[in-house]
Amino acid sequence: MIRFSERVPETIRFERGRLAFLDQRKLPAEVHYWQIDTLDDAIEAIRTLAVRGAPAIGIAAAYALALSVRDVPAERRTAVLHAHAERLKGSRPTAVNLAAAVDRLLAMQTHEPELLLAEAERLHAEDRSMCARIGQFGMPLIRPDANVLTHCNAGALAVSALGTATAPLYLAHRAGRKFHVWVDETRPLLQGARLTAWELATAGIDVTLICDHVPASLMAAGRIDLVIVGTDRVARNGDTANKIGTLGLAVLAQHFKVPFYVACPATTYDPDTPEGSSIIIETRGADEVLGTQAAAVNVYNPAFDVTPVNLITGFITDQGLITAPDQDRLLRTFRRQ
Amino acid sequence: MIRFSERVPETIRFERGRLAFLDQRKLPAEVHYWQIDTLDDAIEAIRTLAVRGAPAIGIAAAYALALSVRDVPAERRTAVLHAHAERLKGSRPTAVNLAAAVDRLLAMQTHEPELLLAEAERLHAEDRSMCARIGQFGMPLIRPDANVLTHCNAGALAVSALGTATAPLYLAHRAGRKFHVWVDETRPLLQGARLTAWELATAGIDVTLICDHVPASLMAAGRIDLVIVGTDRVARNGDTANKIGTLGLAVLAQHFKVPFYVACPATTYDPDTPEGSSIIIETRGADEVLGTQAAAVNVYNPAFDVTPVNLITGFITDQGLITAPDQDRLLRTFRRQ
Repeated sequence: MIRFSERVPETIRFERGRLAFLDQRKLPAEVHYWQIDTLDDAIEAIRTLAVRGAPAIGIAAAYALALSVRDVPAERRTAVLHAHAERLKGSRPTAVNLAAAVDRLLAMQTHEPELLLAEAERLHAEDRSMCARIGQFGMPLIRPDANVLTHCNAGALAVSALGTATAPLYLAHRAGRKFHVWVDETRPLLQGARLTAWELATAGIDVTLICDHVPASLMAAGRIDLVIVGTDRVARNGDTANKIGTLGLAVLAQHFKVPFYVACPATTYDPDTPEGSSIIIETRGADEVLGTQAAAVNVYNPAFDVTPVNLITGFITDQGLITAPDQDRLLRTFRRQ
Repeated sequence: MIRFSERVPETIRFERGRLAFLDQRKLPAEVHYWQIDTLDDAIEAIRTLAVRGAPAIGIAAAYALALSVRDVPAERRTAVLHAHAERLKGSRPTAVNLAAAVDRLLAMQTHEPELLLAEAERLHAEDRSMCARIGQFGMPLIRPDANVLTHCNAGALAVSALGTATAPLYLAHRAGRKFHVWVDETRPLLQGARLTAWELATAGIDVTLICDHVPASLMAAGRIDLVIVGTDRVARNGDTANKIGTLGLAVLAQHFKVPFYVACPATTYDPDTPEGSSIIIETRGADEVLGTQAAAVNVYNPAFDVTPVNLITGFITDQGLITAPDQDRLLRTFRRQ
């Protein structure tokens, strides 16, 4: 397995028995690790999005839960563990990875603190390994002198270690390959500008920030060779839900004949969702869009859009690269998990 | 000619001998008319973008110049007029309309204050008439219950009266037609969010603000029936330069089979520019993009992009509607000016 670079920012640190989360609310102005001493600290960090990204939240919760019963006497430990688990699950009720990670610890046969902590570390290691495998399968796509576009943050900050969409970039960079990454701002919450641009630049990758509607002109000028995005859910037929703006990039990529890849772990594939139209799109509040500079008008603020599989050149997964994706290939590849 | 609605915001007011500019820097938080008492006031307003948009700047300068010699004795008037004209031209040296408007007053046979002022009013009236003709030719495109997307600000605030891209909307609204307008933010300077959303909403039009990368998902859902944008320059073959983001919208419109129109006065057509690739794109500073929320990285901030004529359904001009535009049709129509 590929070792985690010192220079790629770590979302979650567990060293010498101490847990700390990189406080993403303060990025990029301040790189601050919040030391998590209590369960309340962890719940507060998850609730306020100091730590974010579904896999990262799961790992954070597992560590926090294991540590929270370290000093609890054996006879009360399981009861306390269940109570703490409920509180953690309540901190972000819709986060599936959080509940899954917590349940994984609860389901263990013995609740010895050392074993709980080892399981949290194993979860963390699995996530790193998943990222590294995505990186290895995707790395050949990053040709020397390539110009790569990514969108939003499917990076180290959202997951662990290398991220998903960013994993091929980190590995290609580590291999000494020269390339350049365009990062779009990703309005309204600016995850591209705040997080992706920062984490790639921190790792020493050549990054340029652009506004969300600049890619068309770059593609027209032949200045984008490849698009890699993450995803929140892949439907059975391959239609892919991701951060709003992804569909537009996929349409542009097809028009300008630029390969368009989706990077994701096999766990993102959901065979119970037949196709993209079955995915319900979360609409968020107007306050995210309206700043002091916007008129007081109606706002439509969808968080995601759905890219049909026919616009996707391939999926970069921890189980392999799936090009010319169709349902059979997706089912075959993802079932290996 | 169609009368200017009371409810569409006026960029430039000249009433009872007094000149005032709507201070666009304060929009939408504050609707403040800056009374222009001196030539210095006018120069300051133009220089600091309190008044902006090429045609609006030309009109503003003509009024300011005419008023600036009102109390100057006849024997010194022409000399002072020329001195003031030079100062005005220096306030935004690259604004072609400004120089043209000032030169038009200088070229008059007599420099009587009343005649200069009448010429400034005529310039203003011509601009209003141009907008109204664009509005009339474009109005049939705004079908009942249509969902129209516009980009940036080619509105009343940039021109005079009804704007260009917005003129068909204002006239359709006045005719009692029901429709809805999507306005994108237009990063980085947010002219859509600050100006277009405000001016349309002020006029009573049903407006919804969206982030710049939302249109693809709206088009995929059949929620955009028509796109209308303005333009800074139309090349001889019909390729069109406009605010960055326009090209992407045109590609999406073609993909999702949504009509894509460019609204402009015939004066925007430049037969001396053979095609889009001849247009030099202004790149602006990183500071417009980097806020406190963005990482300190490289920024590429182009102000415009070029949309090839084959992606344009038609031009809505003050000389008529040009559909299936080709060079011959463009030359025939625009030469009537």
